[in-house]
Amino acid sequence: MNRIINDPDQVVEDALQGFLKAYPEYYTATENPRVLKTPAAPIAGKVGIVTGGGSGHEPAFLGYVGKNLLDAVAIGEIFSSPTAGAFLDAFKSADGGAGVACLYGNYAGDNMNVKMAIKKATAAGIAVKTVVANDDVASAPASEKEKRRGVAGEILMWKVGAAAAAKGYDLDGVIAAAQKAIDQCRSIGIGLSSCTIPAVGKPNFFIEDGTMEIGIGHHGEPGVEISPIQSASAMAETMLNLVLNDRPLGKGDEVALLISGLGATPVMELYIYYAEIEKRLSARGVAIHRRYVGNYFTSLEMMGVTLTVMKLDDELKALIDVPAQSLGLTQVE
Amino acid sequence: MNRIINDPDQVVEDALQGFLKAYPEYYTATENPRVLKTPAAPIAGKVGIVTGGGSGHEPAFLGYVGKNLLDAVAIGEIFSSPTAGAFLDAFKSADGGAGVACLYGNYAGDNMNVKMAIKKATAAGIAVKTVVANDDVASAPASEKEKRRGVAGEILMWKVGAAAAAKGYDLDGVIAAAQKAIDQCRSIGIGLSSCTIPAVGKPNFFIEDGTMEIGIGHHGEPGVEISPIQSASAMAETMLNLVLNDRPLGKGDEVALLISGLGATPVMELYIYYAEIEKRLSARGVAIHRRYVGNYFTSLEMMGVTLTVMKLDDELKALIDVPAQSLGLTQVE
Repeated sequence: MNRIINDPDQVVEDALQGFLKAYPEYYTATENPRVLKTPAAPIAGKVGIVTGGGSGHEPAFLGYVGKNLLDAVAIGEIFSSPTAGAFLDAFKSADGGAGVACLYGNYAGDNMNVKMAIKKATAAGIAVKTVVANDDVASAPASEKEKRRGVAGEILMWKVGAAAAAKGYDLDGVIAAAQKAIDQCRSIGIGLSSCTIPAVGKPNFFIEDGTMEIGIGHHGEPGVEISPIQSASAMAETMLNLVLNDRPLGKGDEVALLISGLGATPVMELYIYYAEIEKRLSARGVAIHRRYVGNYFTSLEMMGVTLTVMKLDDELKALIDVPAQSLGLTQVE
Repeated sequence: MNRIINDPDQVVEDALQGFLKAYPEYYTATENPRVLKTPAAPIAGKVGIVTGGGSGHEPAFLGYVGKNLLDAVAIGEIFSSPTAGAFLDAFKSADGGAGVACLYGNYAGDNMNVKMAIKKATAAGIAVKTVVANDDVASAPASEKEKRRGVAGEILMWKVGAAAAAKGYDLDGVIAAAQKAIDQCRSIGIGLSSCTIPAVGKPNFFIEDGTMEIGIGHHGEPGVEISPIQSASAMAETMLNLVLNDRPLGKGDEVALLISGLGATPVMELYIYYAEIEKRLSARGVAIHRRYVGNYFTSLEMMGVTLTVMKLDDELKALIDVPAQSLGLTQVE
């Protein structure tokens, strides 16, 4: 394991020192070392936007703390949920009196800890409502959508929810917008190689050389199929079909598209892939209103790519277009 | 080789289709398929800013085409210089009558092709002047600085040169500013794993597991030392010493810092490394005026990190602070 670390058990702490020192314009420390907030938070009268999740997915989750994005984030160990205490402290850091929207992903640990944190927040007089992202079509059939994991669609959910809050929506309005955003998202990932958690020292799952796993999760959760490695064109075809079978799109529809590398995928390959997706959506008459292509939601040094398609209506278009500024996503105009 | 490609001999063409389709706000195609320009170029009366280089380093080089950044870029095969014809066409695409500053890296192929292109440009009535980046301290001793390679310091050179052009500097002024920028830059890289050019199908150099190569180049050029893998702290110490031995800095100095992953390095590790560098500069009384931490200049899926330190004066500070917008670097405020 050739990596740039000090103590393998302290990688999260050590990395957080770097994030805090590098970007004081985005991050302010709080009394909880596993909670970061924007310098401006809490903003009086604005709905606070909070998320939380395991580390190792950078720039997710903390990279989306910023202007017109997240107000505070709860940070877990690598690939592990933040504690209930961290979620609670993130709520406190983000609450400007208008309540807090906790927009997070559907994982057992996160569900449990968010639930516990909300109980305490409610007792402390902070109104918290949630949206649970479940955009990964590979993780359960459509009939059991509540079992699906949240993956890169979370970024679009945060973008939309935070833009709604910035525009002055109240808590119910923010929750409705974020829920709509994730309801309109479908994602699928493909893994080409595994990754190693430093404290473990060896890969926690395996992908044979020459094969790929369609529908793999961000922590190596099993996908829907292991196949010999295919061309970018065939990967795009397979992945887009899985997404569109679940949420059909056709002529005149407009979408936001997020294509994320999983960490080690060369940037040029993400654009080879983008061209394949664009060609297929274009052939169906689907217009790409906005696209995000890059390493937005990773899994350490895993190779692979995720595809997220969000169908837009006028409200979602207006919200996705609001400028934003953060480490992971800066959008001008 | 598990990769997201179609024809291994067509990866550059295929990727360029994706870049062009994804970001029409940054890229306009030209008659030369290996030259991209901003939609606004050429801008009448503004010095055109051009670079060029091999592919596989994305977002370098083409990712820095944008607002207040590069006007046009010449694109080579993976790890190979663009042709003289591509440089010439990039000059033509960027020239708004005030001449062109060609800011590129010190590699034999680039030197030869830029020279040939300038000869033809001059004959066509376009004034082209150059700055050749040579910021890699590992590639030759200080007494033979003209032999040193250009590495990630090129990004800061482009940023400064392009900001000068945007502010209305004339060609000599732009060249002087870009030359000052690179003269004040020192860089060093460390490699932890190799990479594979798709058309070759196997790594073109090797780094043994458990070892690292200090001073390695962006194409696997040999470094100054192969050692057992060290802690992030020890890597930072070694690399900063190599940089500061070459260009001492002390109390009251201000710098711009660029820390780039080489492709596969997890983002959190770049921040562990940043914290180590920051601590050491801070202890010396050196202030970090601006920092860039991310995958700014990569080598496909290589693991490793580069450190670039640029000493600032008032002019460089003003220029580095000019807002910019591109795929690889968006700077607000």
